[in-house]
Amino acid sequence: MQQIMQPMMTQNSVEKFLDDLASGNPTPGGGSAAAIMGAMGAALVSMVCNVTIGKKGYEAVEAEMKAVRGESESVRRRLTAMVAEDVAAFDSLMAAYRLPKTTDDDKARRAAAIQAALRRATEAPLDCARACAEVIALSRRASEHGYLNVISDGGVGVLAGFTGLRSAALNVYINVPALKDRAFAEQAKAELEELVEFSAAASEAVYKLVRGKLG
Amino acid sequence: MQQIMQPMMTQNSVEKFLDDLASGNPTPGGGSAAAIMGAMGAALVSMVCNVTIGKKGYEAVEAEMKAVRGESESVRRRLTAMVAEDVAAFDSLMAAYRLPKTTDDDKARRAAAIQAALRRATEAPLDCARACAEVIALSRRASEHGYLNVISDGGVGVLAGFTGLRSAALNVYINVPALKDRAFAEQAKAELEELVEFSAAASEAVYKLVRGKLG
Repeated sequence: MQQIMQPMMTQNSVEKFLDDLASGNPTPGGGSAAAIMGAMGAALVSMVCNVTIGKKGYEAVEAEMKAVRGESESVRRRLTAMVAEDVAAFDSLMAAYRLPKTTDDDKARRAAAIQAALRRATEAPLDCARACAEVIALSRRASEHGYLNVISDGGVGVLAGFTGLRSAALNVYINVPALKDRAFAEQAKAELEELVEFSAAASEAVYKLVRGKLG
Repeated sequence: MQQIMQPMMTQNSVEKFLDDLASGNPTPGGGSAAAIMGAMGAALVSMVCNVTIGKKGYEAVEAEMKAVRGESESVRRRLTAMVAEDVAAFDSLMAAYRLPKTTDDDKARRAAAIQAALRRATEAPLDCARACAEVIALSRRASEHGYLNVISDGGVGVLAGFTGLRSAALNVYINVPALKDRAFAEQAKAELEELVEFSAAASEAVYKLVRGKLG
């Protein structure tokens, strides 16, 4: 039901999306921007593949470019859908905070709803971070083998993917302190920190590879 | 005239923009993605200001938040318009390469057109990089004084701004080697490298500030 109530932000124009981002309304915010940056990274990986496939002199990497494109298009679809999930998760958190808190029963129900919504608002950016890590891995393959004239697009792809990941991380950090389930909170933070650390090194390596090819 | 011929990419839906980015067509590419990431960063700075203005307990910073918002909205407009300029610059470069090259006169005209287009395709991302550096400076002010509950959005803003800058840099690097005006090429590269170096330190400082506030 939640899905139906949400506006499909990604069907709005880029300019309208930017206006909504800039407004004082809480959604869309940094979580949605993170998913879109990840999706832009995935799209640029696909672009490098699409330009390379069928190009003379690149026959040997055609199968690899097709395999990468299959994965980058799949992760792009997932990241695009995450914009709606980011908005829905935030809205359900706001709705939980607005629940009545007069009786003890009210209070218990409200507290449980807040915890469930916080968990959802932690899982959404964590999932975004995981998808962005995939974008980084795919951008390496595209940048290693892709057509040289569009290699800067592979470089922008890895930068967008890594920034999507770090941005998603900030959205995890802002929610975990209020989580009562500390085991889940610590696990989420630990997974995230591992993703950030691994991806920082991986994305710098791709950036250097691309920079080297640009002369 | 060029402007009229260009599709206004930013009036397309986010999903259509991502589809166009992923396609094998050369535009939009990494240069357009760079401008949009910068514009997202500026929009998030504006969001932090908009949420903070009028908030109880933040009266002392209201004038500063209004000043920041005035600048972030101005730079957001410029960055959004840069998507069309990125596409136009690339298209004029492609058009120059397609000019006839039969006679010596043809060749001379074509070479001059290519050099003029290369210069435009270097200035466009350089201008994008300068605007992104402004976004980073504004995100510091927004993150220092903004409402604590949206501070992660200030953090995403600085990450988006810095990635827009590095992405624009890759689009300068790919064009400068073919520039015959080496003085201009070296000057563009030198300005860019200074911008990247300064902004790397500045944006990491804002990120750390935000991360610290998230606990």
